[in-house]
Order: sequence, then C-alpha cells, then structure tokens
Amino acid sequence: MKIIQTQVGIIGAGPAGLTLALWLKKHGIKSVIIEGKSREYVEARVRAGLLEQNTVDIFEQLGVVDRLKKEGQEHHGVYLSFNGERVRVPFGDLTGGRNITIYGQQEVVKDLTNAWLEGGETLLFEAPASKIVDFDTQNPKIYFEQNGEEGILECDFVAACDGFHGIGRKTLPKDVYKEFTVTYPFSWLGILAYVGPSTDELIYAYHERGFALHSMRSDKVSRLYIQVSNDDSVENWSDEEIWNELAIRLGTSGWELKRGPIFEKSITPMRSYFIDNMQSGRLFLAGDAAHIVPPTGGKGLNLAIADVKHLVDGLVDHYHNKNEEGLKNYSKIALKRIWRAQDFSNFMTTLFHKSDEHGSFTYQLQKAKFDYIKTSKAYATTIAENYVGLPF
Amino acid sequence: MKIIQTQVGIIGAGPAGLTLALWLKKHGIKSVIIEGKSREYVEARVRAGLLEQNTVDIFEQLGVVDRLKKEGQEHHGVYLSFNGERVRVPFGDLTGGRNITIYGQQEVVKDLTNAWLEGGETLLFEAPASKIVDFDTQNPKIYFEQNGEEGILECDFVAACDGFHGIGRKTLPKDVYKEFTVTYPFSWLGILAYVGPSTDELIYAYHERGFALHSMRSDKVSRLYIQVSNDDSVENWSDEEIWNELAIRLGTSGWELKRGPIFEKSITPMRSYFIDNMQSGRLFLAGDAAHIVPPTGGKGLNLAIADVKHLVDGLVDHYHNKNEEGLKNYSKIALKRIWRAQDFSNFMTTLFHKSDEHGSFTYQLQKAKFDYIKTSKAYATTIAENYVGLPF
Repeated sequence: MKIIQTQVGIIGAGPAGLTLALWLKKHGIKSVIIEGKSREYVEARVRAGLLEQNTVDIFEQLGVVDRLKKEGQEHHGVYLSFNGERVRVPFGDLTGGRNITIYGQQEVVKDLTNAWLEGGETLLFEAPASKIVDFDTQNPKIYFEQNGEEGILECDFVAACDGFHGIGRKTLPKDVYKEFTVTYPFSWLGILAYVGPSTDELIYAYHERGFALHSMRSDKVSRLYIQVSNDDSVENWSDEEIWNELAIRLGTSGWELKRGPIFEKSITPMRSYFIDNMQSGRLFLAGDAAHIVPPTGGKGLNLAIADVKHLVDGLVDHYHNKNEEGLKNYSKIALKRIWRAQDFSNFMTTLFHKSDEHGSFTYQLQKAKFDYIKTSKAYATTIAENYVGLPF
Repeated sequence: MKIIQTQVGIIGAGPAGLTLALWLKKHGIKSVIIEGKSREYVEARVRAGLLEQNTVDIFEQLGVVDRLKKEGQEHHGVYLSFNGERVRVPFGDLTGGRNITIYGQQEVVKDLTNAWLEGGETLLFEAPASKIVDFDTQNPKIYFEQNGEEGILECDFVAACDGFHGIGRKTLPKDVYKEFTVTYPFSWLGILAYVGPSTDELIYAYHERGFALHSMRSDKVSRLYIQVSNDDSVENWSDEEIWNELAIRLGTSGWELKRGPIFEKSITPMRSYFIDNMQSGRLFLAGDAAHIVPPTGGKGLNLAIADVKHLVDGLVDHYHNKNEEGLKNYSKIALKRIWRAQDFSNFMTTLFHKSDEHGSFTYQLQKAKFDYIKTSKAYATTIAENYVGLPF
C-alpha cells in the first residue's frame, strides 16, 4: 500500500484544485493532488471560457499567465440584444478599468498543471479517491486507487475540489447542510465551430424565438448557443437549422453571422444548485463540488477560484498565524459571493431567456429591464461589475 | 338638457384629471372636469402619500405647492431592513439631490381642486359620466348625469382620468389593446393610527414572518402595513396583535415602535394591471384608468402625473404646433415609464415580501440582493433613482 503524507490533500486537478495547490505553495504550505481521470482527459475537457478580472489577477500572482496574456482575448465590454436591438455595456468606464478575458478552461488547466509539475510537485492522475475518513480528527485520510493498488493520502486538511459528482459532497455529513436546487424550464444547445467569431465581444440575445449567445474560443473557433426546450435533443437539429436559428436570434441590422463546420454539439440543462455549508471538521469543499450556476453569467469557474481564495486565507491563518477564524468561517465567507453569483446568474438567465409568451407581462418586465440598461448608468454598472467580478 | 362645450373634456377629479386641467390652462387650452362623486368624498379618499421629485416639480410649475411645502415632509432617504438589519439608501448623494415628499393624496386633491375652482373654472361634482361617444370623430361627446338631469360635454378630446373602475377603459374598443394582470399571493393589512412616526424616513422590512412597512402621514398620524395572506380579514387581527407584529417585523436593535389608537384598518390586494394601448381616436386614458401597480414602490399617483405630462405635451403640440405626433405616440411614450414602474414595483415587492419558505432558494436570492445593496453604490443608486422617479 502506497502512503503519501502532506499538509493539504487535494482531490481533483481542475482549476480549483490546481490553483489551491499553487497558491498554498507560494505560502510554503505543502499539498498533493489526486485526480481520477487521465491528464489527457482533464486537459481536453471543454468547459467555461470566461475569466473575471479577479481570476486573471490571481493567476498573475501565481505566475501562470504567460500563455493567457498571449492567447487570451481581453474583452472590454459585452453586447446585449433584445428583439434585434443591440447595445453595449462597456466594462472599463463603469468599473474603473476591470475587464474579462476569454480563455478556455482547458487551457487554464494545462497552464496550471504545467506550473505544478514543473515545480516538481506531486499530482497523481488516474487515481480516483474512494473515501475520505477521519476528517473530524487532526489526521484525515483520503483513500484512493491507482494502477489497481490502494493508496492513502494522509494530511492535515482535505480540500474536495472534485466537482459536482465527486465524493467530497457525498462525504459531507447530511445533517450539516441543506441543499437548494432550481431547474430552469429550458436548456442550451451549444456548438463549437471552425469559424472566426462574427463579433469582437460576446452577444447575449433575447428573441421571441428564444435566447441565443455568441461566444468564442479563438480567432478560428466560435462557441454559440441557442435556448431549446428541456426535452429537445441534438438529433433534432441539422447544422443548417442551428445556423439559421442563430442568425435570426442574434441578428441586428447591418450585421452578418459567419458560418463554419460544427465539430461539437451538445445540450446543457440550466440549473442552480448550492449547499448552505461547505465544510465539516477538516473537510472543505470548493468549486462545483459545492455549487452549480447556470452558465449565463459565466460565473462557474470564477466562483471556484473565489472559493479557493477564501480557503487559502483560512489555511494561511491556520499554519502561519495560529488563527482558526478563517477556516471556521470559510463557508460563511464563500457563500456570500456564491449567493451574489447565483442572483446575478439568475438575473441574466431570466432577463434573456424566453420563459413566457412573447408580449406577456413577464416579457414586458424583461423589456423594461433592457430599456433601463440603455438609460441608466447605475443599472448598466450593476451588470458590468457583476460580470467582471465584484472585488473581494 | 345641459350642454357644455370645451376643448378637452376630462372625466375624474382625482390627481390626474385636476393636474391635466391646470396644466392645459397654463398653455391656454380650455377644459372642463366632471366627477361622479361629491367634493367631500373625493377630498377625504385616503390613497397614496408619496410624491416623486418629478411630481413635486410639476406641482411647483402649476403653482400649487404652498401648503405642500409647509405640511409635506421631504425625505432624503429610505430605510431597508432584512432580518432585523437596517440600512439606509440616501437619495441626495445617489441621485444628484432628488428627493421624495410625503404628502397625502387627499391633500393634493384639495390643493388642486382649490386652485382650479379659484381660477373660476368648471368642475361638476356628483356628475357621473354615463357614456363617451364619437371619439373616432373630431367632435367627441361625454354624456353625464347631474341632479337627475342628463348633460353632454362636447369637446375636441376626451381624457379619461376616471380610475380603475371608470368608463374610460370600458369604452376603449376591445380590439385596440391587450390587458395584463398579475395578482401577488399576498395582501397588505394597513392601519392609520394616531401616533407620531417612530422613524424619520420610511422603513421597508423583510422578516421571516413577512413584509412590513412603516410609513407616515404627519407628525401625529402614522401609516403602517403588514403582509397577510390573500384570504385574511381585518376581523382576525386585534389592534394589539397588529402592533406586536409590526414591532417584530420592523424591529432592529436599539429601536422602539411607538403605538397609538388605530382609526382605520383595511386589507389591500397586491396586483399589477396594465394595458398596452391607452388611446383610441380622440379618447385618451391616464392614471389608474390604464394601470395599477402594487403600492410597494409608491408609484401609483406619480405614474398618473407622468401620463398627464405626456398627454399635455401631445395636446400642446396639437393646438399650438399643428403637430399630431405627440398625441399619436402618447401610449407608446407613457408605456415606457409605466413598464419601468411595473418592473421597479415588482422588484421592491419580491425583494421584501415572503413568498417562499424562509431560508429557501428564493429567500437566498432576496438576501443576496439586500447584501448587494449594502456594498454596491450602483445597485443602491438603481433603487434611489427609481424611488425618487427617473427624469422624463
């Protein structure tokens, strides 16, 4: 049996786990990461692609932004469209120069993984955690398997950064938290296509046929979405039908949507999930393990990094300042931001999706909000400051 | 048969009808008002008591603010309370010096009525309108009754300022508008009491027992409300129970609620109603005749005055500039503000009322919004600028 000892045992080599490991290292705190999947799998997993200013600032502190600065696209605003009328919310003017950066999550994971491994640190791939024990003592243990062999990661603290389906949340005693779930009555049909973006910044659109989003990955790859019903399936949509629908919903006068070969098609349900306590004893959850937001606000990855920030604060206080307050209040502090993000994601989702008849009372309130964005600097600022990420 | 001739025939001597008449007079346009009820009844009718900056500015232009300036209370902010935590949204700092004035609607009506009658103008009380005809021609007629006799008000235009139950909306051809109704799943139990207010500015409160509002009428009279269910009745509430409930819901540490004799108790349903077109031919609707908002945002009376502003603009264009655009677009222009007010009223209503279990997802989003008000100047500004009234 393989036994590894460290200070912080981290489950999951996604953005949360890797950022936590690198950040702790900067503070002289040792950690080891175990990851159930292969390196190839993790680095290819297509997820979010929108980094808040806060997230970029943290990566900068950790010295992992060389490629991000070269290949990432900094956006200084976002387009909002309603019934074909398009307005821009400028970030810089409204938030004192804060912005977002478009850079795929898989690229972030590659950069973080490289930095961790190049530093000679331990990251076990294809080593799924099987159980977490003794987290109510000072010596928790994470059991895992690798190459058919069982191993134990002995540590002072367990950080479960193992996603929505991981064992972190399943291990959390049922009586220490309540869970909250909202399933929205629509889904996203998302495509990746080999075509340069038809826009310099993202476009969120309400249309009487439903929501659409024009996002991008690079100069050559675009990412686009349309609202579909929850019982729809990709088989119901030919490539041409998808492009036609996107052109109509995103359309505005004098603008044309470029089309290209679609190489990925998938349907994502829209839901919100969170728990009201993310810790028990020496077990701490971060990222998707503790919460899911609908992708509309681009908050998923950024919330995970924010959790990590609060967890690092608590662990630094514990190891260097002999102060347990940060860890004790970790959930409480992290949840403030999580609730804010849930509310913003809910706001963006309900503002731009069709959830009731076009022209209904619900629609009129959506329209009233859109018109208000056009005339109120304060209202536009609330969107800008949430979108680029509120300061910590 | 009594026949009266004028330029604009106005049905209803509430704030909308009276303001319209006085304002048109300033522009040299003649009008006559007919009102179904007696002067005593109209002047005693207890309604809203919150005047936007816009509304006060208009009354100032019309020269009817002498008593308002003496007896009205200018408020420079509002208190918002959540689970006993109270914060203040200052209006002046956030809106460039705009404020609200607390002054009962019946006092407004007295001032406007006096100004109109002292100017030697015509206002027939106890003269209910029975039908509006020929509004698709250039010579519309309003039939009314007075002292058992039938009369006809012949005019160029009909302004129906006759409230939610008036004949104005009933006369509007069914095929020119759609109507929208939302009934909220709670009501307000409101009281008027002989006691000075326990606060210098209004208090809106969310509490796990439900919404409460501390408003006021004067130094000696307070107006307070608590959220009750739609099937509740005033008989279920003793005065002591109401005061106890108000003390709990509005409570914050170091603050005490003063109690006094309750002299009015009533239950008001919370609803939103509007139509998407407020005119046909030469018939124009203004105020409650065309829309109802829940009282949470204090918008009802102010929206009526805003409608009047747009109608005056249109009539002045017609009579003085031979331009019909203002009248043609009256509904469209007025509805922009009405939709904004519906959205703000909906926002304030859903933010402070209990509509789901305390601690639920819905609750968490309400709490997240309250916490955001505390930290974001932009968000607090959106509340302040809507509350004092967005500029025209």
